[in-house]
Amino acid sequence: MRILCDFLTIQGLLAKRDGTYDHSPTSALFLDPRSPHSLHTTARFLGLLEMRQAYDSLTDVVRNGRTSLPGDGTVEPDNPVWVEFAHSMAPMMAPMTAPLGQIVLEGLAGPVRVLDIAAGHGLFGIEVAKQHPQAHIVAVDWAPVLEVAKANAHKAGVGARYHALPGSAFDVDFGEAYDIVLLTNFLHHFDHAACVGLLRKVHAALKPGGRAAALEFVPNEDRVSPPMPAMFSMSMLTTTASGDAYTFRELEAMYREAGFGRITAHPVRTGPHTVVMGIAG
Amino acid sequence: MRILCDFLTIQGLLAKRDGTYDHSPTSALFLDPRSPHSLHTTARFLGLLEMRQAYDSLTDVVRNGRTSLPGDGTVEPDNPVWVEFAHSMAPMMAPMTAPLGQIVLEGLAGPVRVLDIAAGHGLFGIEVAKQHPQAHIVAVDWAPVLEVAKANAHKAGVGARYHALPGSAFDVDFGEAYDIVLLTNFLHHFDHAACVGLLRKVHAALKPGGRAAALEFVPNEDRVSPPMPAMFSMSMLTTTASGDAYTFRELEAMYREAGFGRITAHPVRTGPHTVVMGIAG
Repeated sequence: MRILCDFLTIQGLLAKRDGTYDHSPTSALFLDPRSPHSLHTTARFLGLLEMRQAYDSLTDVVRNGRTSLPGDGTVEPDNPVWVEFAHSMAPMMAPMTAPLGQIVLEGLAGPVRVLDIAAGHGLFGIEVAKQHPQAHIVAVDWAPVLEVAKANAHKAGVGARYHALPGSAFDVDFGEAYDIVLLTNFLHHFDHAACVGLLRKVHAALKPGGRAAALEFVPNEDRVSPPMPAMFSMSMLTTTASGDAYTFRELEAMYREAGFGRITAHPVRTGPHTVVMGIAG
Repeated sequence: MRILCDFLTIQGLLAKRDGTYDHSPTSALFLDPRSPHSLHTTARFLGLLEMRQAYDSLTDVVRNGRTSLPGDGTVEPDNPVWVEFAHSMAPMMAPMTAPLGQIVLEGLAGPVRVLDIAAGHGLFGIEVAKQHPQAHIVAVDWAPVLEVAKANAHKAGVGARYHALPGSAFDVDFGEAYDIVLLTNFLHHFDHAACVGLLRKVHAALKPGGRAAALEFVPNEDRVSPPMPAMFSMSMLTTTASGDAYTFRELEAMYREAGFGRITAHPVRTGPHTVVMGIAG
C-alpha cells in the first residue's frame, strides 16, 4: 500500500506529507466521489477490457487497419459496453452539455422537436430540454442504454418531455419534422459512406432549415493537433472496423453529400470537442 | 499506418511535415537502430509479458504485497527474462558504466580482482577491465546469461581477463581476496535480510579495505523523489516477492550490519542511479 500511494503521489494523484497521504488538489476535485466534479466513474468505461485489450495486438490492428475485437468491435449491435458508457461517462461529458445546448438552440423559439441519436446517458438531449421548456426529446439508442437515459431525464425533471426510440440509428424510423438532430460522439465510429448514409437519413427527418449538430473530436487538417482530438483516431482504430476522428473538411464533405448547407464548426471551450452543425437545405 | 504515425508524432516520437513522416530529434538519437545511442532493444525487455501482466492484477499485488507472477517472480532461478535483459538492456545501462568504473577504481593501482555479481550483459565489469588494464573480472550470473556477457567481453577486447562463474549469487562460492565487488541493479530484488546475508558473503570475499559498490535506484527518504528512482519501487512490487527501491539510510543499515564501514553515496550524473559503496572493515 505504501508503494502504491508513493507511486500515486509521484503521479500527482495523492499528496504525501510527514509520511501520511491525503488528496492532491487534482484528486480532491476529480477523483473523490464526494466532489460534484468527480470523474471517478469514467475508469469503469475507459478501463473496460474491450477498451484496453486491442492495444495488446496493436501490430495486427495496424496491419489490418481495423479493430481486433470480434465483429465490428464496440459498434456491434447491443454491445453492453454502451450501458457501462451511459452509467459511467456522464460526468466527463457534463461540461460539454451547456455549450452544445446553447449552440443548437440559438435563436429558436416556441415548440422544438429534438432527435438525440445515440443518446447514451442522455445528458445532451436532457440539457436541451432544460434550456428550452418547449423542447421535446426523442432519444435513440439500444433499449438497455435508454433505460439509463430515461432515468437521468426523470432525475433532471424533464421526463415528461423525454421519449425513447430503441434500436439502431441506421435502421429505426426516426419520424420527421425535427428542428434539431443531435449526433454526439457518434460519427467517429463509422466510415465516410456510412456517415453520409446516416446524415441523409437525418436530413430527411429534419424540417427545412432544421439543424444537425455533431459533437466530435475534430483534429486540425494536419491530423496531429490539437493532441486530444488527434489522438482519438487511435481509439477508433483499436475499437472499430472503420471509424476515425474526422477533420472539419471531411465532416463538411459528408454533410454536403447528404444535402446540408451552411456547415459550421463551433469549438467547445469546456472540453476537447467541436460542434459541427449543418442546416437542412 | 497513418493513424499510428500521427499518434507517434503527437507523442514526439516522429515528425510530420507536409503529410510525410520522419524522425524527430529524439527518435533519431534513441530509437533508430543505426544510432550509436539507440535504445530500441530495451522495448524487448520492458515490453515482456512478465513485466506487464502484473499490472493487470495490481489490486491483488497490492493486497498481497508481492508479485502475482509464479514463485518469486523475476528472481526465480534461471528465469529466462535475464537472458533477454542481457541482450536488450545493455544500451540503457551503457551511460552508467564509465562513472561506475571511475568511482570503484579511484586510487587503485596494480593488479585488481573484481567480482561482478549478477553481471547480466557484463558491461559494468567489462568497463572496469577497459579502464584498468590489470583488472581481472569474475562474473556471476545464470549460465545462459554469462554467454551474453562473455561475448560482450570478447567484443570489447577484454575476454582474456574475463572469467565466468555460473550460479546463484546466494549459493555459488565467490572465492576470495577481491579488491572490488560490483552489485549492479541487484539488491532491489530482495528484502533487507536477504541483502544483509548477501553483503556478509560479499564482505567475506573482499580483501580488508576492499570495496563493495551497489548501483541502485535510491529514492530520497521521502520515497516520492526523485521520480524515477522513487517509481522503481512499483516495478519491484509487481515483479518480485519482497524487493524495493531502498533509501540510502536503508542501504547504509544493510552494509553496516554486514560489517562494512565508510558507506558513501555517489549519484551518477548520466542516469537515475546512485552508486552506494562500502569498505570492508
